[in-house]
Amino acid sequence: MSSGISPNLALDQEVARLRAAGERVLHLGFGEARLPLPAGLVRALGEAAGHTAYGPVAGRPEVLAAVAGYHRRRGLPTEGGQIAVAPGSKPLLMALVAAVEGDVLLPRPAWVTYGPQARLMGRRAWGVDIPPECGGVPEPDALARTLERIREQGRRAGLLVLTLPDNPTGTLAPPEIVDRVCEIAREADLTVVSDEIYRDLLHDPATGFRSPAEVAPERTVVTTGLSKTHALGGWRIGSARFPAGDRGERLRARVLATASEVWSSLAGPLQSVARYAYDEPPELTAHVARGARLHADVTRAVHRVMTDAGARCRTPGGGFYVYPDFEPAREVLAAHGAVDSASLERVLLERAGVAVLGGHHFGDDPHALRFRAATSLMHGATDLQRRTALDADDPTELPHIRRELEQLAQALTKLTA
Amino acid sequence: MSSGISPNLALDQEVARLRAAGERVLHLGFGEARLPLPAGLVRALGEAAGHTAYGPVAGRPEVLAAVAGYHRRRGLPTEGGQIAVAPGSKPLLMALVAAVEGDVLLPRPAWVTYGPQARLMGRRAWGVDIPPECGGVPEPDALARTLERIREQGRRAGLLVLTLPDNPTGTLAPPEIVDRVCEIAREADLTVVSDEIYRDLLHDPATGFRSPAEVAPERTVVTTGLSKTHALGGWRIGSARFPAGDRGERLRARVLATASEVWSSLAGPLQSVARYAYDEPPELTAHVARGARLHADVTRAVHRVMTDAGARCRTPGGGFYVYPDFEPAREVLAAHGAVDSASLERVLLERAGVAVLGGHHFGDDPHALRFRAATSLMHGATDLQRRTALDADDPTELPHIRRELEQLAQALTKLTA
Repeated sequence: MSSGISPNLALDQEVARLRAAGERVLHLGFGEARLPLPAGLVRALGEAAGHTAYGPVAGRPEVLAAVAGYHRRRGLPTEGGQIAVAPGSKPLLMALVAAVEGDVLLPRPAWVTYGPQARLMGRRAWGVDIPPECGGVPEPDALARTLERIREQGRRAGLLVLTLPDNPTGTLAPPEIVDRVCEIAREADLTVVSDEIYRDLLHDPATGFRSPAEVAPERTVVTTGLSKTHALGGWRIGSARFPAGDRGERLRARVLATASEVWSSLAGPLQSVARYAYDEPPELTAHVARGARLHADVTRAVHRVMTDAGARCRTPGGGFYVYPDFEPAREVLAAHGAVDSASLERVLLERAGVAVLGGHHFGDDPHALRFRAATSLMHGATDLQRRTALDADDPTELPHIRRELEQLAQALTKLTA
Repeated sequence: MSSGISPNLALDQEVARLRAAGERVLHLGFGEARLPLPAGLVRALGEAAGHTAYGPVAGRPEVLAAVAGYHRRRGLPTEGGQIAVAPGSKPLLMALVAAVEGDVLLPRPAWVTYGPQARLMGRRAWGVDIPPECGGVPEPDALARTLERIREQGRRAGLLVLTLPDNPTGTLAPPEIVDRVCEIAREADLTVVSDEIYRDLLHDPATGFRSPAEVAPERTVVTTGLSKTHALGGWRIGSARFPAGDRGERLRARVLATASEVWSSLAGPLQSVARYAYDEPPELTAHVARGARLHADVTRAVHRVMTDAGARCRTPGGGFYVYPDFEPAREVLAAHGAVDSASLERVLLERAGVAVLGGHHFGDDPHALRFRAATSLMHGATDLQRRTALDADDPTELPHIRRELEQLAQALTKLTA
């Protein structure tokens, strides 16, 4: 296995070093939501110190009940016995890969961690191109063809990972594509992981959300967590909802077996935080809604900057990412030494002071001129700036955010004009 | 892989169910230290809510510096750059297995999790019998023979795991055996993991402690955590100290690569707790010392009960376990249906209300009549009882502990007399 750390975490550390050395870097390279911390979350943590004992591997019953309620409010009938919480959704995703025999199917591009996790657990991963309209799901016909190829090689596919809304493209797959992908998954008897960690950050609350767990409830595991919605990445709180019934119970038992050998349980005090947050008290949902609006405003503004600079770029619909394709500017970019996604990433950082992650980190064609820009660190460097952004009618008009948007526009103009 | 959770966590959940149903179970089946929580740890957690950002995978620099100081005070020159913290030592142990190619060598018996972790990562595990005088290390000649057998099979050994003091035997390997084992490890170019999570719970503070990291510093990783010493199992705080130099740096980079894909980092607030605890302020070391004395008193008393009941049992030297061998009582036990360690475990629970873990869970010969008794849950069912036990000159004379010792003696007499 590689001895490099996950590229997003690595780039975050690199930007911290550059800034410490006095460089002015626009950090679009890391999907960290930074928002002011609501008082209720601080209180929940402070009151939870008594939970020093090892508890159930899946989590304490009242915590599981809270997560089940969260899913019920989103139209999925759920009991606490279908839930597990963990230190982030990453370890749950790893344990799911370990629990399901066979090859792993991923959208291409997909979040940086799915592929390395598959390799860590000795699984082969197949990337399947996404449709023109959205990411996070494979294009259905391409998925069918890949399954055929897997069978021809005498192999078996086991797990299909979907991301709704998506990282890196920031788009949400529409219901009709989710339906078709789930139909194929059922025919091929795949287990579906629906990574819905950005689900509560839809840019338009009226957007219809179709979860694979509604379409293929018997085979779909939904993972989520508090890192994005509640800007709590550093607290490492994730959860999984397993299918009801035999198949789901077996799968959950296997995941908990791995959990018991690798992380035992989510830390007791953080389980108390999870309970509070998944119960969705009104003061917290209001905060989350404001955060979602802020992400939408800033991400749409970044999308405009990208298309103004000549990129093709899917319109974002959730989360805080855009995924531009600078193919239309290939010739001018080549003059700057940017001829593929790795060199484009390097040129952007070194010549223009903009940190992004090249598409190759997401399993995408390395020759393409694509990258992911994360907009979530643009809300401000200080808690006061972020609080102002959260409260602003139009955050993109705030001086500190406008300055960053202009820095980005100028950097791209410099390289593409 | 198995779909059962780790047997110690499973038994703990089973005992909770039996007790909820009104059964009076003496719980010697789970290595959970339960002690009153020092105010300083509560304070450290409460003050740490601000750490919501993803930070460095290894841990924040000030946290790593604190862990380095902990090791320096134990005679190991250490810089922060050699340290990583994690949600428990389990994930670090898993990542170490993933980081080192080749088969895994374990003492037999050994802690329940090492073997399943090796299998999870696709590694073959070899159990090597322990010496008559102590556990936690393989008997040196047996280790040499096993290495020979591995070579004869065309395989390669990569990792040797030692436990000092040991779980399940509760003994500490003496310096001369540690020296011989390290010499063999160097000749075979093994990486050594020295699991020292019970190190600060020596029964006699004057006991000489020889860490493999002193003997084979270039190849030894020391893992530890706050679960046992500070009775903080539910907070999931572990750490690893890597060798200085190239080999150590490569190993740490590989472990951090896995960390970045599986758990990202230890949760920010718990890193603050780790910093406070590893700094070892006087109020905390006094508390730890009292806890170690309590563990020593109760564990020695349980050891006496075992030998009085006719078992052979190594004298415990650290931690809170004894590992009796009831071979001398084989005939009488057979009359009760206890003919191997699985049936002995069952008979003890069902006929005598005593929960222990049979030796087979630790990789030991399943035909032997051995089990591990954990004494750490005998200090009391309430915080007041545990506080009283911590302050008592002779805790084994306290009514609630004396009652449990008598319940154990009667249960064993019933089966072995």
